[in-house]
Amino acid sequence: MDYKPKSRLTAAAYIDGVLKGDRMLLSRAITMIESNLESDKVIAKEIVQAILPKSGNSFRIGITKGSILGDKTRMEELANREEAYIRPSASGDTLGGVANKTGETMLLCEAAGYDIILIETVGVGQSETAVHGMTDFFLLLMLAGAGDELQGIKKGIMEMADMVVINKADGDNVRKSQIAKSQYQNALHIFPQSESGWSPVVSTASAIKNIGIDKVWEEITVYKKLVLENGYFHNNRNLQQVQWMYNNINEELKRLFYGSKDIESQLSILEKDIISAKISPVKAAQKIIEAFKKSFQTR
Amino acid sequence: MDYKPKSRLTAAAYIDGVLKGDRMLLSRAITMIESNLESDKVIAKEIVQAILPKSGNSFRIGITKGSILGDKTRMEELANREEAYIRPSASGDTLGGVANKTGETMLLCEAAGYDIILIETVGVGQSETAVHGMTDFFLLLMLAGAGDELQGIKKGIMEMADMVVINKADGDNVRKSQIAKSQYQNALHIFPQSESGWSPVVSTASAIKNIGIDKVWEEITVYKKLVLENGYFHNNRNLQQVQWMYNNINEELKRLFYGSKDIESQLSILEKDIISAKISPVKAAQKIIEAFKKSFQTR
Repeated sequence: MDYKPKSRLTAAAYIDGVLKGDRMLLSRAITMIESNLESDKVIAKEIVQAILPKSGNSFRIGITKGSILGDKTRMEELANREEAYIRPSASGDTLGGVANKTGETMLLCEAAGYDIILIETVGVGQSETAVHGMTDFFLLLMLAGAGDELQGIKKGIMEMADMVVINKADGDNVRKSQIAKSQYQNALHIFPQSESGWSPVVSTASAIKNIGIDKVWEEITVYKKLVLENGYFHNNRNLQQVQWMYNNINEELKRLFYGSKDIESQLSILEKDIISAKISPVKAAQKIIEAFKKSFQTR
Repeated sequence: MDYKPKSRLTAAAYIDGVLKGDRMLLSRAITMIESNLESDKVIAKEIVQAILPKSGNSFRIGITKGSILGDKTRMEELANREEAYIRPSASGDTLGGVANKTGETMLLCEAAGYDIILIETVGVGQSETAVHGMTDFFLLLMLAGAGDELQGIKKGIMEMADMVVINKADGDNVRKSQIAKSQYQNALHIFPQSESGWSPVVSTASAIKNIGIDKVWEEITVYKKLVLENGYFHNNRNLQQVQWMYNNINEELKRLFYGSKDIESQLSILEKDIISAKISPVKAAQKIIEAFKKSFQTR
């Protein structure tokens, strides 16, 4: 195999390749999306803009606490199939940056013709919220027998779940997973009804023994039918797209302010002054915002 | 009684009055905090700055879903006592504005010598989060027999509670409130351990029959001892004060951007273009941020 670096193509070549469903060109187009080189970013923007009208025609499923990527054997099995394309997601400095890259990668995959998108997050920081914000169905994957089941769940995650699947429900774990199942079912009752009109379901599965996987897909199918019919699917998609813009705007506004070295050093002084009651928090904020406005206007 | 408007005093007169614990001057100083007149704001800032070193010496309790203010008789009883001062909180356009006024009112009450502050929120919008962010103990007050108890709780509220008190646990409601109590206890188990080291408690009470109120105070006392000893109290206070500044900064940054009529009309066009896949959310954000930067620099 030859590993010499590939030269860049024109935006048109990537676009054409993606729209034809060419996996190699799709991969290379995603590399453009993930690149931090300014020249690549220009190409990436052009690709996204061009494929945009061909995106969106998929059902998007978010999965968290996943042990999917961990299951190398199954991934290999899947990776060898013509209908599937697997891509590890880019990491980056900011959650917003990662969310943009993941979101745009998803658009490219859709434009390439993939009609089911699975986005898995390993659950660091606010990544679940980001993935929830770009998918149609959110699946919380848990392991049976991992001790005090419910205590281990991060704040706010349960409320986002459309389905909880307890994996490794086999052998000695079967009883434990049944107990976990009823715990989750009780816990889900305390949350207000979702706007989708869907009541989250809990089920057990064993990926390794291929038990309960079809049940997961069945539920997803029922959900999809419900939200397509009641209009939630499209409303939610539109909201998500618009929210995606606002997330970028709000992150950029913060970056303009907090990205300044000068602001950073002033903030650390103000924090100390607040704690020692030298300045009130409200006044401290006014002071630094004034300084920011001035510095911005003289840039 | 004479209702003609009172003339403004000097900042020094308010400051002196507050620090002496003069209730009438405390009230008038709070009026300055709540005023939207620019000249009053100048005085208010001076007052807050001056009393700041004398603030903070209280135990701050947040209460939500309150029926306290609703209970007129009890409020009257309390209002007649020399040791208590009751003040309805200011409302305003922005949550941040209300939070600032409530927070500064609290500082003034502390400087006037009140050592227990109760802040009640009726639970609109994000007000619980704001009150939780300025108090040492957060009490969720519920009513027994209000139907499907747990479903009615807003997202994220249960996770903030240090204690849940089920009120109106009297007469026909006693059994219902016992059931509600165990439901809440189960529900609280699903949340991760709080950083305070405290496990939230659930109890029943009847304010009208004066049953279970001493139990509430007992629990608060135990909590206070715990968090004073393990350092959480002071760490949390410091974090809250600093966070107060950041909340103001972030709100002001958003105001600078979203407060512009021009930005507003551009956003509404971009939203439509995003939904019709004419522009990607990422590109839309970049476009409007560039426009904002330009407009800001030429102001």
